Amino acid sequence: MSENKFFEITSLQNEIVKDTVKLQQKKYRKDSGLVLLEGEKSVFEALNCAIELKYIISNDIKLLERAQKNSKAKLYLANDKVMEKISSTKSPVNILAAAIEPGYEIDEILKKEKLLLLDNIKDAGNLGTIIRSACAFGADGILLFGDCVDEFSSKVIRSSAGNIFKMPIIRLNSDMCLMKKIKKSHKIISTVAPFGKWGKKAKKCDEQVYQKPYVIMLGSEASGLCNELLSMADEHVTLVTNNNVESLNLAVFAGIMLYIINSKNN
Amino acid sequence: MSENKFFEITSLQNEIVKDTVKLQQKKYRKDSGLVLLEGEKSVFEALNCAIELKYIISNDIKLLERAQKNSKAKLYLANDKVMEKISSTKSPVNILAAAIEPGYEIDEILKKEKLLLLDNIKDAGNLGTIIRSACAFGADGILLFGDCVDEFSSKVIRSSAGNIFKMPIIRLNSDMCLMKKIKKSHKIISTVAPFGKWGKKAKKCDEQVYQKPYVIMLGSEASGLCNELLSMADEHVTLVTNNNVESLNLAVFAGIMLYIINSKNN
Repeated sequence: MSENKFFEITSLQNEIVKDTVKLQQKKYRKDSGLVLLEGEKSVFEALNCAIELKYIISNDIKLLERAQKNSKAKLYLANDKVMEKISSTKSPVNILAAAIEPGYEIDEILKKEKLLLLDNIKDAGNLGTIIRSACAFGADGILLFGDCVDEFSSKVIRSSAGNIFKMPIIRLNSDMCLMKKIKKSHKIISTVAPFGKWGKKAKKCDEQVYQKPYVIMLGSEASGLCNELLSMADEHVTLVTNNNVESLNLAVFAGIMLYIINSKNN
Repeated sequence: MSENKFFEITSLQNEIVKDTVKLQQKKYRKDSGLVLLEGEKSVFEALNCAIELKYIISNDIKLLERAQKNSKAKLYLANDKVMEKISSTKSPVNILAAAIEPGYEIDEILKKEKLLLLDNIKDAGNLGTIIRSACAFGADGILLFGDCVDEFSSKVIRSSAGNIFKMPIIRLNSDMCLMKKIKKSHKIISTVAPFGKWGKKAKKCDEQVYQKPYVIMLGSEASGLCNELLSMADEHVTLVTNNNVESLNLAVFAGIMLYIINSKNN
C-alpha cells in the first residue's frame, strides 16, 4: 500500500488488471453486471449521480484522493503501463472505474412525461451524443427499441460526457405489446424525413404542439423508424432543410428536435 | 480493357494504386492538389457539384457506367483486393475518386451574407458534420480560423455526406487583419457558453436579430473561441440548457445554432 493507503498495482498479471480488460467485452460486462468508466468526466459524473463504484484505478494520486471523498470503492494506484493496458482508447486515460450497472423498472419510466424512443441506433457515438442532448433539453427517460448498441459500452458513456447516469434508460427490445401499453398513457410522436409517404403526412416540428405525456420516436440514420412504430404513431413531425441537402447527421437532427420540443414546452 | 472500355487494375503494384494510397496523407494531397473521395455519396455528390475528377476506381461496373455519364475522368475497374488496399476505412468502399481540390478567393467569399467561422476545430467528424448542417440551414460560406483540421481529409468529406462540395470554404489561418476587414462589411457574432465572462454579456440565441451580412463564430469543443475573436465580436449569443448539463457536443450545438438562425431569417 502507498502512503495514502491506496493499493498499488504494478504488474499486468494482477487479477484486477485482467478483470478490467475483460470489461471491454459486452459479454463479460453483462455477466458481471459491471460497467467500465474511462476518464475523469465519466468517473466523477457517476460519483455525482451516486452510482455505486466497485473499484477505481488511477495513476494520479490527486484523482484518487478526490474520488475517495465521495466513494467507498476500492482505490488502486497503478503505473502508466497498467493504465495503457486497461484503457480502450488510443490515448490511455488517467482514471478508470468499474461501476454497478444502473437498472430501471419499466413502470418507473412510464411515470415520466417526456420520453424519447430510439429505434435501432447502431452507432455508439450517436447514442451517447443523443443521451447528452436529451439531458440538456429536459427529456426524462429513454426507451431503446429494436437492436440498439449496448448503452453501457465505453464509447456511449464517453460520448454522453457522463450524462448517461442522469437519465433512466430501458431496453424494450422490439416489444410491440409494451408499446401498445405506453400508447394508452402517452402521445406517440414520430420524427420522419420531410419526403416520402410519412413525410407527406407530417407537420413541421416547430408548428406541432407537444402535450405531455409524450414519447418522441427517432429512427436510425440508415433506415429511419421501422414501419411498426410509424404505423402506431399518433402524430408525425418533420424538420425541413434546404432542398439540396438530403439529410442531417442523426445526433444533430435529434439535438434540434429536442431543442425545439423543450423550447415549446417552456 | 474490359468490354465497357474501362481500364482494369488487378495488381497492388499498379502506379495508380500507389498514388491513391499516398493521397491518404495530407502532405501528398497538398503537393498534388488532389482530394480523395471515398464511397458513392462523396463521389456522386462531387459529380453533381461539377467538381473535376481526375480518375475514378471501382469494383462495380454499374457504378462506373453511372459515373461515365457525368464525368470525363479516367475510369478504372479494380478487384476487391485493390479496393481494400486503397480504402482508408475499415470496410472497403466500392468506389473512390481523385478530385481536383476546389479553391476559392477571399473576395468571392466576402460577397456572401451568411458566413460561419470555425475556430480551431480539431475533430474531422465534427468539422464534416458542421459543414453538412451549414448546407442544410442556408449558410453560404465557411471561414476556417486558427489551426483547423484539413477540410479535405477523407473523414471530413465523409462526415459532410458529400455536402462539402456545395459550400465555399476558405482558410484564414489566424489572420486578424483579414478579420478586421471582414468586420467592416459583416456583423460579427460569437457563440459562447451560457456561463463565464462572455456568457454573462450574451443574449439568448433565439432572442437575437441576425441581420445580414453576418459572420457567426463557433469555437472548439475543448476551449471555445479564442480571446482575440471574442474581443472583436459585435454581439455574443448563447444557448441555454438544463443546469445539470455542462455542455453539448460541438456539432449538435452548431446544428441548433444554424437551425435557429435560419428559422429567424425566413
